Amino acid sequence: MTNPMQATRKIISITDQNVVHREDQVAREYPLTIYVNDREFATMVCTQADLEEMVIGFLGSEGLIRFYKQDVASLSIDESRGFAYVSLTKELPTEWQFYSKRMIGSCCGKSRQSFYFHNDAKTAKTSMSRTTMTPEQCFRLMEALQEQSVIFQQTGGVHNAALATPEQMLISRTDIGRHNALDKLYGYCLMNGVPVRDKVLLFSGRISSEVLLKAAKIGVGIMLSKSAPTELALTMAEELNITTAGFIRDGRMNIYTVPERILTPKKEVQ
Amino acid sequence: MTNPMQATRKIISITDQNVVHREDQVAREYPLTIYVNDREFATMVCTQADLEEMVIGFLGSEGLIRFYKQDVASLSIDESRGFAYVSLTKELPTEWQFYSKRMIGSCCGKSRQSFYFHNDAKTAKTSMSRTTMTPEQCFRLMEALQEQSVIFQQTGGVHNAALATPEQMLISRTDIGRHNALDKLYGYCLMNGVPVRDKVLLFSGRISSEVLLKAAKIGVGIMLSKSAPTELALTMAEELNITTAGFIRDGRMNIYTVPERILTPKKEVQ
Repeated sequence: MTNPMQATRKIISITDQNVVHREDQVAREYPLTIYVNDREFATMVCTQADLEEMVIGFLGSEGLIRFYKQDVASLSIDESRGFAYVSLTKELPTEWQFYSKRMIGSCCGKSRQSFYFHNDAKTAKTSMSRTTMTPEQCFRLMEALQEQSVIFQQTGGVHNAALATPEQMLISRTDIGRHNALDKLYGYCLMNGVPVRDKVLLFSGRISSEVLLKAAKIGVGIMLSKSAPTELALTMAEELNITTAGFIRDGRMNIYTVPERILTPKKEVQ
Repeated sequence: MTNPMQATRKIISITDQNVVHREDQVAREYPLTIYVNDREFATMVCTQADLEEMVIGFLGSEGLIRFYKQDVASLSIDESRGFAYVSLTKELPTEWQFYSKRMIGSCCGKSRQSFYFHNDAKTAKTSMSRTTMTPEQCFRLMEALQEQSVIFQQTGGVHNAALATPEQMLISRTDIGRHNALDKLYGYCLMNGVPVRDKVLLFSGRISSEVLLKAAKIGVGIMLSKSAPTELALTMAEELNITTAGFIRDGRMNIYTVPERILTPKKEVQ
C-alpha cells in the first residue's frame, strides 16, 4: 500500500569511503487547495495527514474561525483531488476584501496576509498561564517529541509539534511545513474543545515571530523549541507573557522570556 | 554600534544543572516592502543585509527580471523605513493581474503565487552542466559553508546559501529566511553577470520543491544540502537534470538524483 506521507527512493549512500546503493524514505509534499464559502482561499503544501485539523487550525489562526461548532457549517475534503471545502455560518468578513497584499514571512512565512497586522490583534492574547515546570521536564518532553515521530525518524524531512502538560505529551502532529504542524495542533484543539491555557507547546523548529504568534493564538503559556528564536519573536513573547526556551538538546537549554515558569535549580553560577 | 542583523539578549542558560545568567546573540527579523512600478508588490521578512541583491533575486525568481541591465530601470532602498522601490523598463506583465490567489508553500513556502504554475515553466530549464566533483569536495564545501557564517555561529537562527566551484566557495549569503538567502545569491549573479551553469549550490536547509525550483532558476547543475529532500523536489530534480545530495554531514552523504556528477570511489558495497 502506498504511504501518502512518505515515498521510497533509490539512493546512493556514501559513508567513510563506502558506496552503498539502497532504498531510503523521503517525505512527500501534498498540495491542498482550500475553498471558503465557495471562494478559493489558499493552497497549502503539506503532509497528507490530519487535513481537517489543518484546515480548521489554519482558518482559526487567520481569524476566520473562533469556535468550531458555531463558526463552521460544513467541512469536506476531496483527498484524491486535493481540495478542501469549508462553509462558514457567516459571510467572509469584508476585511478579507482588502487582503490582496501578500505578506511574505521569514523562513516559513506563509504569506498569511493578515500576519501581525490585522487579525493578530484580535486573536493573540496575553498569557495568564500559571503552569510551571522544571528543566528536566523540558528535556524529557523534547526527547519524547522526536522519538514518537516515525516519519521524522525515517525521512528527517518533517517538523513536529505537540501539546503537553509538564508531565506528558498529549497530542503531536507532523508536517513538512512547520506552520502546518502547528495548524494541525490548533485545529485539533478547536475541534475538540481542548483547554490550552495551562499547556506547553513543543516544537522542532525555530521560534520566528510568526511561530510565536501562532503559539499565542493557540493559547499556550510555555513554548519549548529544539532550535533558535529570533529577536522579534522574543519581543512579542515578552509582550504576550509567553515563556520561551530554545536549543533544548543534550541536557542544555536557553530560557529567553518569562523565566518564572521554569523552576531552575538553586545552584546558580553568575 | 547596533548590528542590524543580530541583537544581544539576556538569557538564562541551563547546562548540566548549572544555571548561568548571560548574554546571547539572536537573529533579527527585518521587514522590507517592495514596490514595483509604484505598485506594492510584496513584503519580505529578512535579515537586513544584501537587500538590493535580495530584491533583484526575488523578482528574478518570480519571472519579472531576466537580465538586470535590460530589465531594471532603477532600484532604490530606504533602509531606515524598510521600503524598496524598483522600476522596470517595461510594464508589469498583465498576467500579474491574475495573481490574486495565494500560494502557500510547505515549510518556508513564501506564498509566491506563481510557484510552479505560471512562471516556473519559463524560468526553470533543464541543466546542461558538465561539472563533476568528488564526495570529498562535497564534504569540504559544506563544512566551509557553515564555518564562514559568523551570524550562524553566533545565533544559530539563520540559513546559509553559497555558490561554489568543486574546488572552492565563491560567494555566500545568509538570511533568516531560507528563500531569501537563495534570492540574495541569485540577485548577485543577475547583477554581476556571473555564469552559473557549471557552479555548485550549497544550502543549509531542506531541499523542498520550492527550493529545488529556485536552484533550477539560478541555473546550477548540482545542489548540495545538509538536510533532507522531499519527494516532489527529487521528481523535479530528475526532470530538470539536477544532481541533488543531502544529509551531507560528518563524512556521510546521500545522493538522490543524477548521480553521474558525483564521482564516487570504486569500492562499492551492494
